[in-house]
Amino acid sequence: MRLATRNNGTPDGELLVVSSDGLRCLSAAPQWTDLLSAIAQWDAAEPHLLALADRLEQGGGEAFDPASLRAPLPRSWQWLDGSAFATHAELMQVAFGTDPISHERPLMYQGLSDRFLGPREDAAFLREEDGIDFEGEFGVVVDAVPIGTSAAEAMAHIRLVVQINDWSLRAHAVPEMNTGFGFILAKPACSMAPFAVRPDDLDDGWREGRVCLDLEIDWNGERFGSANGREMAFGFHELVAHAATTRDLVAGTIIGSGTVANRDHAQVGSSCISERRAIEIIAGGKPATGFMHFGDRLRMEAVDARGARPFGAIEQAVVRREPAGSAQRPR
Amino acid sequence: MRLATRNNGTPDGELLVVSSDGLRCLSAAPQWTDLLSAIAQWDAAEPHLLALADRLEQGGGEAFDPASLRAPLPRSWQWLDGSAFATHAELMQVAFGTDPISHERPLMYQGLSDRFLGPREDAAFLREEDGIDFEGEFGVVVDAVPIGTSAAEAMAHIRLVVQINDWSLRAHAVPEMNTGFGFILAKPACSMAPFAVRPDDLDDGWREGRVCLDLEIDWNGERFGSANGREMAFGFHELVAHAATTRDLVAGTIIGSGTVANRDHAQVGSSCISERRAIEIIAGGKPATGFMHFGDRLRMEAVDARGARPFGAIEQAVVRREPAGSAQRPR
Repeated sequence: MRLATRNNGTPDGELLVVSSDGLRCLSAAPQWTDLLSAIAQWDAAEPHLLALADRLEQGGGEAFDPASLRAPLPRSWQWLDGSAFATHAELMQVAFGTDPISHERPLMYQGLSDRFLGPREDAAFLREEDGIDFEGEFGVVVDAVPIGTSAAEAMAHIRLVVQINDWSLRAHAVPEMNTGFGFILAKPACSMAPFAVRPDDLDDGWREGRVCLDLEIDWNGERFGSANGREMAFGFHELVAHAATTRDLVAGTIIGSGTVANRDHAQVGSSCISERRAIEIIAGGKPATGFMHFGDRLRMEAVDARGARPFGAIEQAVVRREPAGSAQRPR
Repeated sequence: MRLATRNNGTPDGELLVVSSDGLRCLSAAPQWTDLLSAIAQWDAAEPHLLALADRLEQGGGEAFDPASLRAPLPRSWQWLDGSAFATHAELMQVAFGTDPISHERPLMYQGLSDRFLGPREDAAFLREEDGIDFEGEFGVVVDAVPIGTSAAEAMAHIRLVVQINDWSLRAHAVPEMNTGFGFILAKPACSMAPFAVRPDDLDDGWREGRVCLDLEIDWNGERFGSANGREMAFGFHELVAHAATTRDLVAGTIIGSGTVANRDHAQVGSSCISERRAIEIIAGGKPATGFMHFGDRLRMEAVDARGARPFGAIEQAVVRREPAGSAQRPR
């Protein structure tokens, strides 16, 4: 089953079930108007959504227009992004010149969750000098998770899986890490691929709480990376349990894997520019690849061993954003 | 004008206007059902709410029951907590044994915003060993703030002021700061005092983007501190502008001052236990005051120079929370 969210002018959008061939869809309204409210009552919502999926496979539904899509969750109450790929963490220490971080427990920060960009929405930033970078990753959406939930118990709370581009502004990252307070300026809104799916919908692409798919990333039409999600040092269930150590997790909480990275990056490439720069520093003493420019295009799509692409593609342009009040100022 | 939120069984509660004597109230429904939706359209909501306040001053309204109160904002899309009191930051470096942090720009982390506890709601934690501490602070609620808004422009976006207890679990603070990723385990849900007020409602208690009131804190009935909010190194307008450097701030974003602290802490005391412990370390080489125990009570209420108490009091007990699944386990 593939779930998407259509723009209907409301903040949360309209929940759709999309056919497996991606050609037709059915709205889940009026019973389930949006995904954020459906995930809060998932045991009631899921059978209804599955029944719509059945109708679609029998030829029902209307034509599906990918251009109308927003993020599956256009906003949520909580976004907790991990950094669970050890290869990524090690390379970022080279890129940032920071001290090694203990890997005894998961790295995690709370990020902006009031807006997730749609899969074809422009990513707008004020300044190229902020060091515009992408981060290809996977995420899970949980229902309500009580405080103190164990990793084993957490697995059943993972209701949906999504694919995310965690936009990052690298010029702000090290100063913010040095405060110990985490990222505000360095982490603007993320983007999401078109479809949210259940873990079981990934078949053997979901193993031990990990999304074992290749994340193909193209920057201005050239392949940049195709790292696989299987090498997480902590599974998503362990990230969920970590997040719930001292707090109840509200239904709709999204937990991110951090940038997908593999030990054999020489073969598969990287899922963010900073990592490639670190590899260049290790190889030649200095980085050769610059960050993104206005007008650049980015494409991200995960593919499984059989060639299926369950999340669809993020296809975005980086554009210049005018600052507040600039429309009133003489140009 | 004083705004409060009554428990009506909905996630966001029911918006109330409360009389200046605190005895009567009027519901803002059906026009404005809750504060989160009102703040998103504040220019339309404010005149309606002021008209209700006028009716109350003329003797209208129903009896006000403080026991029914939730936080003025029981949840919001974003909570960005600063650490704007230099005295607090310096003492916390002693308490935590961490390196000095640059004060060139504000310290800020993104915290849990899907739940704010009401002023009389118990604060429930799993373990005393986590180092249960309070942090008395002030916060502001903004309407939609565009990216790149200057500090001068940000002042007009500050629509409401609130008083907050930022509950902290100190055993997790240093390990999380050392990652550079900020606080997840160390920062469970905050509590809010009963009333949100407009900056102008504070009269000369609101100066240069600062809440110049004494924050009286009593722990188990003994005065712990009464530090004044005026010594912020950055005003709230500067914190708002900082937060909006690379992101649009969604309407309802709450920005916190961090723990209120004064240079003359020997006279006024502190607004969190960790600070007192740091003062003890400086004076005698080791901390003497322990963190909170289950059953402890905490009271926080800000008072202005004329004795007015615009936010009302937080009055809470710390209680033991059973972990997930414990109800099903044999005891």
